[in-house]
Amino acid sequence: MIPPREFPLTEPSIDFETAAGSRIRRTVLPTGLRILSEEMPAAQSATIGFWVGVGSRDELATDSAVGASGFGSTHFLEHLLFKGTPSRSALDIAIAFDAVGGEHNALTAKEYTCYYAKVRDQDLSMATSVLADMIASSLIDPEEFERERQVIIEELAMREDDPGTAVWELLFEAVLGDHPLARPIGGTPQTIEECTREAVLEHYARNYRAADVVISAAGAVRHDELVAEVVAALTAAGWDQSIEAAPVSRRPLVAVDTTPARSLIVEHRPIEQVHLLLGCTGIAMRDERWPVMSILNSILGGGMSSRLFQEVREKRGLAYSVYSFSSAFSDTGVFGMGAACTPARAREVADLMHAELVAMATDGVTEEELSRALGQLSGASALALEDSDSRMSRLGRADLILGEFQELDTILGMLASVTAEDVRTLARELADRSFTVAAVGAIDESVFDGFGEPGEGNRS
Amino acid sequence: MIPPREFPLTEPSIDFETAAGSRIRRTVLPTGLRILSEEMPAAQSATIGFWVGVGSRDELATDSAVGASGFGSTHFLEHLLFKGTPSRSALDIAIAFDAVGGEHNALTAKEYTCYYAKVRDQDLSMATSVLADMIASSLIDPEEFERERQVIIEELAMREDDPGTAVWELLFEAVLGDHPLARPIGGTPQTIEECTREAVLEHYARNYRAADVVISAAGAVRHDELVAEVVAALTAAGWDQSIEAAPVSRRPLVAVDTTPARSLIVEHRPIEQVHLLLGCTGIAMRDERWPVMSILNSILGGGMSSRLFQEVREKRGLAYSVYSFSSAFSDTGVFGMGAACTPARAREVADLMHAELVAMATDGVTEEELSRALGQLSGASALALEDSDSRMSRLGRADLILGEFQELDTILGMLASVTAEDVRTLARELADRSFTVAAVGAIDESVFDGFGEPGEGNRS
Repeated sequence: MIPPREFPLTEPSIDFETAAGSRIRRTVLPTGLRILSEEMPAAQSATIGFWVGVGSRDELATDSAVGASGFGSTHFLEHLLFKGTPSRSALDIAIAFDAVGGEHNALTAKEYTCYYAKVRDQDLSMATSVLADMIASSLIDPEEFERERQVIIEELAMREDDPGTAVWELLFEAVLGDHPLARPIGGTPQTIEECTREAVLEHYARNYRAADVVISAAGAVRHDELVAEVVAALTAAGWDQSIEAAPVSRRPLVAVDTTPARSLIVEHRPIEQVHLLLGCTGIAMRDERWPVMSILNSILGGGMSSRLFQEVREKRGLAYSVYSFSSAFSDTGVFGMGAACTPARAREVADLMHAELVAMATDGVTEEELSRALGQLSGASALALEDSDSRMSRLGRADLILGEFQELDTILGMLASVTAEDVRTLARELADRSFTVAAVGAIDESVFDGFGEPGEGNRS
Repeated sequence: MIPPREFPLTEPSIDFETAAGSRIRRTVLPTGLRILSEEMPAAQSATIGFWVGVGSRDELATDSAVGASGFGSTHFLEHLLFKGTPSRSALDIAIAFDAVGGEHNALTAKEYTCYYAKVRDQDLSMATSVLADMIASSLIDPEEFERERQVIIEELAMREDDPGTAVWELLFEAVLGDHPLARPIGGTPQTIEECTREAVLEHYARNYRAADVVISAAGAVRHDELVAEVVAALTAAGWDQSIEAAPVSRRPLVAVDTTPARSLIVEHRPIEQVHLLLGCTGIAMRDERWPVMSILNSILGGGMSSRLFQEVREKRGLAYSVYSFSSAFSDTGVFGMGAACTPARAREVADLMHAELVAMATDGVTEEELSRALGQLSGASALALEDSDSRMSRLGRADLILGEFQELDTILGMLASVTAEDVRTLARELADRSFTVAAVGAIDESVFDGFGEPGEGNRS
């Protein structure tokens, strides 16, 4: 098993071949900006991502400069970066990617923001220049700001209208309570209405600095060319390359206590299905039990042969969609199970899902399930790594969030060492936790009276 | 430019190298079953699809054998094929794919049904055997049938709860009227409640025959092995390989007249956004103007630099999502534009979208727009063809639906020959058609009074 490759913040240069035959290189510029590449032989396209180590959890309830709420400002800024620089209008940026048929988008998450593009090899240089310009010298034009406010309010309305999305936001708020990870990534219509250009500008100035940024590219990429292009593009965009800085430290990867704020949250809507989630605090991203959680999650609700799928859908026909999940962040996580079903059966489905976790805690898992989970995770990982998108993401997260790079063989080795007893121990710990029920649909809270109490399938 | 490669039904064996360096082979078995492969050098995974030339448009309003509605029986059958054969239980089938981490699913469309799997190269033989067994010898067990009925009703409820999906079904019904393509693919809760096992069995016996089936695989595939495995698996599953038949003819690719049945259809829902579609009859799949339609669609609403995106989102902030589309089938199609916006601005958005089509009909498009559209389509196609999924689909559709295979260079050559005048002529023809408005959201029909009449931005 290949040991994880450390990506220490202080190590300027890294260069190695992976067991799969790709070459990974990393350069840290004097400004503290990190550039990583994974050259995949025979690739004819490439994906590049600009990662900024700021997400919605970092927003301030009251922005220091302007006194307005900062909630939603990370995502607001992400939209505005497409709206023009001194040398490129919003239309120029759109044309640059459309004209080459590239995929081009951005993602605001709770702990980071990523701007990315997937293009043919001959277009990587263009993509690098445009993304660098967007990141480094966005105008945040006042008129564009007001128009984009309306676009974001439409985006929030679209998310609100989707009960499957709405129930996730309820669950996170209920499980994580006052923790900053609990908040919805995009803010609320109210915070977006209140958000000022000054708040977004302050957010931009505070967080979009070279030492905060990781650039990762995978596929048909040549590292030295990439570094030269990044430096040229950032210099052209006005980022001073003579300022010396160390890369900014990643977040502390220390678990925090997150006691569920609410045990039940139901939003009544006149729709056909109830979207139902059961959740509790899970494990943080670097928790040493992550391989156990991956195996547990696969056996419990990871595929068509999983226990939840078999019990809820195959044996009883109660749901089309049923699954388990583990969302992991730097210092905590959310674990749970979800389904969408007819309102009259929602309580039954909630009880069934919880009972499956309890059964795993009580009776453990079989060797055949362990081996199937390992096969599932290794096959799916191998398929994912054929795409440059997945490799670009893996590389960016390795440096920005994890601080180390794990080859597929390393990961599979850790998964293979998980025992049935490990899984049962973790299942027992999770089953002993207090579960929150979140539901959106045509039901009332009383449906879940006594859920999770002794005699209701909860062993605690 | 490489001429399209004909795939005549009577030609048993085809073997050629593509300009991109892959090798395409086709074998027609004595039973009429067609097997196609595209071997991609250096691929480490493969996608295989079993295509059956039957879709929801082929369903009978009253099934001849049993007197019940056949609507939804194609999709019902697709679900049941996962529920077991004499040699594999439903759980065995689920385990087979989960254990290797493969992607594995099925798709019922209006003109075909496809069962597919994406796996690592060493698992292709397994995937072929399991899919062949599912197709050839499904048990359609009566108890599984009843449970799956409930799962499908949940799936339909999920689709119904999604306003973005619901508005599409309204539009197709309104534009295509009595045409069989107008119907929703999955049927309705009522037709699924009424559907009998006998109706599904009859559908299965009538349509799932060797001469109706095309198997296509792409990636790390060796043709002779594939053919041998298909024959072995189908023989094991009980399909008699000694029955001689010719492949079943594809549908007639002849345009039919489809006059919109309704000019307006609004479904009131108490949600934040209005999901809005404008549609008219478009062009059929083999209409010689398809390259013109592709270019027109790209310029009108195909990307962030498109006219609709610029006018509706960028200049006015009225919508997060806005686009145009062209859905093409054997004998007709639906063309149109769509957006989701706040109810108070829905009429304005509808007028703006229609006005953009009228402007294109009146003033044409620029050479710069033509060239950008060509760049967009060629770049996106090149990126798509890196994946074995896209190549498997292209190959299956070429044989089952189109009757010819076009290399990327051929397609790009046809797109490059489109002139600004071609686009204007097609835009004029579309703008002269009667447009149907379909909307789901918190608005009333009166919002669209007079839409499309002279003075409202419609030049007809």
